[in-house]
Amino acid sequence: MENRASLIERLESQAQTIRRDILTMIYKAQSGHPGGSLSATDIVTALYFHVLRVDPGNPKWLERDRFIMSKGHACPSWYACLAERGFFPKEELLTLREINGRLQGHPDMKKTPGIDFTTGSLGQGLSGGVGMALGLKRKKPSTHVYVLLSDGELNEGQVWEAAMAAAKFKLDNLTAIIDYNDLQLDGYCHEVMPFEPLREKWLAFNWQVFEMDGHDMGNILDTIEKAKRIKDKPSVIIAHTVKGKGVSFMEDKCDWHGKSPNDEQFVQAMKELGADNPQTLQKELRKPSRPSKSSFLSDISRESLSATNKKVADQNLIPTRDAFGEALVELGAEMPNLVVLEADISKSTRTNRFAKRFPARFYQFGIAEANMMVAAAGMSTTGKIPFYSTYAVFGSMRACEQLRTFVAYPHLNVKVAVSHGGITPANDGVTHQATEDLGMMRTIPGLVVIMPGDYYATKALVRAAAKYKGPVYLRFTRDAIPIIYGSEDSFEIGKGKLLREGNDISIIAIGDMLCQALKAAELLGEEGISAEVIDMHTLKPIDQDIILTTAQKTGYVLTVEDHQIECGLGGAVAEVLIENLPTPMRRIGLRNTFAESGRYDLLLEKYGMSANHIFITAKQLLDASDS
Amino acid sequence: MENRASLIERLESQAQTIRRDILTMIYKAQSGHPGGSLSATDIVTALYFHVLRVDPGNPKWLERDRFIMSKGHACPSWYACLAERGFFPKEELLTLREINGRLQGHPDMKKTPGIDFTTGSLGQGLSGGVGMALGLKRKKPSTHVYVLLSDGELNEGQVWEAAMAAAKFKLDNLTAIIDYNDLQLDGYCHEVMPFEPLREKWLAFNWQVFEMDGHDMGNILDTIEKAKRIKDKPSVIIAHTVKGKGVSFMEDKCDWHGKSPNDEQFVQAMKELGADNPQTLQKELRKPSRPSKSSFLSDISRESLSATNKKVADQNLIPTRDAFGEALVELGAEMPNLVVLEADISKSTRTNRFAKRFPARFYQFGIAEANMMVAAAGMSTTGKIPFYSTYAVFGSMRACEQLRTFVAYPHLNVKVAVSHGGITPANDGVTHQATEDLGMMRTIPGLVVIMPGDYYATKALVRAAAKYKGPVYLRFTRDAIPIIYGSEDSFEIGKGKLLREGNDISIIAIGDMLCQALKAAELLGEEGISAEVIDMHTLKPIDQDIILTTAQKTGYVLTVEDHQIECGLGGAVAEVLIENLPTPMRRIGLRNTFAESGRYDLLLEKYGMSANHIFITAKQLLDASDS
Repeated sequence: MENRASLIERLESQAQTIRRDILTMIYKAQSGHPGGSLSATDIVTALYFHVLRVDPGNPKWLERDRFIMSKGHACPSWYACLAERGFFPKEELLTLREINGRLQGHPDMKKTPGIDFTTGSLGQGLSGGVGMALGLKRKKPSTHVYVLLSDGELNEGQVWEAAMAAAKFKLDNLTAIIDYNDLQLDGYCHEVMPFEPLREKWLAFNWQVFEMDGHDMGNILDTIEKAKRIKDKPSVIIAHTVKGKGVSFMEDKCDWHGKSPNDEQFVQAMKELGADNPQTLQKELRKPSRPSKSSFLSDISRESLSATNKKVADQNLIPTRDAFGEALVELGAEMPNLVVLEADISKSTRTNRFAKRFPARFYQFGIAEANMMVAAAGMSTTGKIPFYSTYAVFGSMRACEQLRTFVAYPHLNVKVAVSHGGITPANDGVTHQATEDLGMMRTIPGLVVIMPGDYYATKALVRAAAKYKGPVYLRFTRDAIPIIYGSEDSFEIGKGKLLREGNDISIIAIGDMLCQALKAAELLGEEGISAEVIDMHTLKPIDQDIILTTAQKTGYVLTVEDHQIECGLGGAVAEVLIENLPTPMRRIGLRNTFAESGRYDLLLEKYGMSANHIFITAKQLLDASDS
Repeated sequence: MENRASLIERLESQAQTIRRDILTMIYKAQSGHPGGSLSATDIVTALYFHVLRVDPGNPKWLERDRFIMSKGHACPSWYACLAERGFFPKEELLTLREINGRLQGHPDMKKTPGIDFTTGSLGQGLSGGVGMALGLKRKKPSTHVYVLLSDGELNEGQVWEAAMAAAKFKLDNLTAIIDYNDLQLDGYCHEVMPFEPLREKWLAFNWQVFEMDGHDMGNILDTIEKAKRIKDKPSVIIAHTVKGKGVSFMEDKCDWHGKSPNDEQFVQAMKELGADNPQTLQKELRKPSRPSKSSFLSDISRESLSATNKKVADQNLIPTRDAFGEALVELGAEMPNLVVLEADISKSTRTNRFAKRFPARFYQFGIAEANMMVAAAGMSTTGKIPFYSTYAVFGSMRACEQLRTFVAYPHLNVKVAVSHGGITPANDGVTHQATEDLGMMRTIPGLVVIMPGDYYATKALVRAAAKYKGPVYLRFTRDAIPIIYGSEDSFEIGKGKLLREGNDISIIAIGDMLCQALKAAELLGEEGISAEVIDMHTLKPIDQDIILTTAQKTGYVLTVEDHQIECGLGGAVAEVLIENLPTPMRRIGLRNTFAESGRYDLLLEKYGMSANHIFITAKQLLDASDS
């Protein structure tokens, strides 16, 4: 039998391998979260190479212990352990975040062997663990459920709901481990949303509390063993860790939360982690697989746009979240009552620029979107104009009732301004892709719903929303899209914009799909089909006049949206047409399916949302009606 | 100046008046929540008649103190204090929960003078208070924000999110008061979801903690004063109270959470509260204003139904939640893996019957819908078939992302079975009326969405959902609706049911609107118009065939739903028709508006959803197309 010293030595060595795997995966993908993966590595290694009863040959073995990585963005550490344990081939690690791959940007229980629970949205895993532990509690032989949480997740009230429930149900087959590196996306936890005294919190929620050094293998093993022996209550282990552990320049640096290393950084990191030939590896991994500008979706001819009297500033690709960040700073200078509420992702939503310029009007609420929504409602009653900022999945769905009942019902002056609309957080995968939000938001009475089509439209429509008195939902892109408009273009809430005139078919598009629609119109033009293109930046209230005018003119309508084809733009236009002017129509968008991780342009192609698909569908619609 | 003794005496006497007002309002309305109103009375009286700086003549006075009743169902105590302070005429108290009234079933800041914040959905008020306190913090003169919470609300994680934020922002202008009577809807708090040690919890969240006797006026005044003087941190007062305080037979009885007194109980209660002539008052208040069966919507002729080979069991009115409760018990006996997860409202959702019969398979999660959703997901991975039970607003909107990402994305075998669909919780008002959920749920890929049309349809479709492998959203009515089907009728998920054949127009209805559609078809028949009626109990996947067949046959389509006209049934049918067979259509439902409190049948009339409106709209559709 393995003695303790050799066990620890084996695990420590294994952990170094896992760290190299993590770096390799993220470098290859040029996307992912190294900081939190490295901080969790020793714990996950201890679990998978000593603690957990699992069977790589039979991942669904009923008697297995369960593991949930609630901090799903650290999945590279999970994937590496699963691969090294033999759940799937190691080479597959190089497919991280790739289209058609099994290793999604955040863990997917249906795709990856060995993944017991889907995660990625923070604050959720402990609840899943409570459900599993309840379901397994009376089973023999007993199985144990481990949930790894980040520290930032503790901002989420749902963690405390789960904590209360686990104590009530006396779930002694449940152990939570907190990867406490004191860094979340926007900075130190003790600054973003202080949660100390942490031990006292868990004690007050009736858990058995342990602490350990999350990088001391012996300490890890002993503590997990002690926690497992606790009876009649759940146990939590506060693991003191270092974000980016093992790579000197990543350690305790919040910049390394979600950044991939460049060539030099990769070589340096791998050297520190004891890799044999890091430079050779780097060269092997480095392939020119990233989209070049010309292969991307920006090749709309300048002629096409200028023909519609629009000035194309240039063909740069810019995410509309960038325009939002800029607009906020400009509006902040003009409107002293404008305040920004942020849920720990200001670097990503671009509200960090506002925060820097107007620190006294920037409120960092941490990862607690539900509370932040109703707090925004409360602030608006005191005369402030709150911009509520987070990702679209959270703003629309995690805080859905809060938005509906506390913002929209009393028609308060709150702007829910969210990034990562549609599949534009392409590499992150489904948990971060809001593809149902437009329909959901459109159902809410009195809520204005907007998705601008480019940089300039965003700047103008954020301004219009700030000046409008009432609740607005504004959706931006994470990934870059072409610039279509010029700075002199004007936009009015509730008024669609005729971008290109045509006689044969009307293409009505919203948001990042506008450039695809324009490109498709060009392709159609080459075949002698004259397509009209309308930018329906405001989904609600929908511009009924422009829809009926164009449908009357062309007789055929095609809607295009980065969203499910149900309820969103396609639904809105269908409702207008069927009641007023029944006209043959087709909808382009996701067809009752979630998408996946992958490059944005490839996803558009796979899910039938590219210019080419619009082109084909338009022709089919015209052909079907001819026959 | 008033001395302490006379101050206390005045407030105590005032509190008795408030208690009599509360009883009177609820008796008159025959709807409302006496237990929690009475337990809060002394505190709210102290606030409104001594503590708060408010001006009844100028309710929006900028320098006023703010009060939020987070436990919104106790609003009769708030309304009574506002009326007695002169914010609106006392006589208006008798309009509680009445249609076109200003006193909604739960507080509405846009309708009622003096109400600073809309509430009714539990766990939300403290977040609103955080926002207000932040917005007012730097204002001079300083104003103070008071939030009254129930004890059951502490189950909601959002309260702890708000607690963390308030401490971070050092909101010393915020005082939370917890009405701790240890009773929530389903029983004692310490049984439903234990939250003790409560003092330690708040201390661990960095609040200053006080305790007081919530019925001792001197103690109340002193404690509130002490709390107000705390600097640099928020303060919380744990007020020990008795539910139903002041009425002997209501005290400490959880049955009196949401029940209105009958004639004898009213007289008895008013006697105990020192009313002069309770019997006379009772007779004055008692008016036969409740709907009689024949004046209601159940008068569909037996002939009409039998003509379509449907057996009408009888004309009883039964809420479909009752059928759900019965079906669960039957299925529980057959399916050993079926479990029920409940959020503190089992008496109302009718899962209490299952709880009684199968206590080991009933999991009481308290008022924590988000956690419960992901816990249901976790349980399903262990082979259980969880029925997740709460109200529709909470199941669809409070736990929206949880349902979408953790149940639907991994396509887990969870049944979200929710009561209070549409405006059927008519008296409760907007916070409890889910009128956006069908569209929202329909947008989620792979989720089955069902609303049965009566008692028998519910029993059959709950069974079908239990047997179906995958996620399902099932929506029931709170209020009673007629029985349409017989026990031998069969139902298949995804297949609409042709209920009545016709040639001139197709009426497609869902849920509680089915009986209205049938009635409308009769009215049309009297004018020689032959209407086809289809029960579209499954909204997703929508039965495309039946829609196209009927549209082809009649040439005109009308959709009828207890929901916004956007995105729901109307949206689904519009999408099918416009892509396949553009056909003139109209939608019946809420038109981009929230509803209000009031009698169900009156609300249907006011919001244009009654049989009569269907009849008129059908005729308009036919006329418009003739011309």
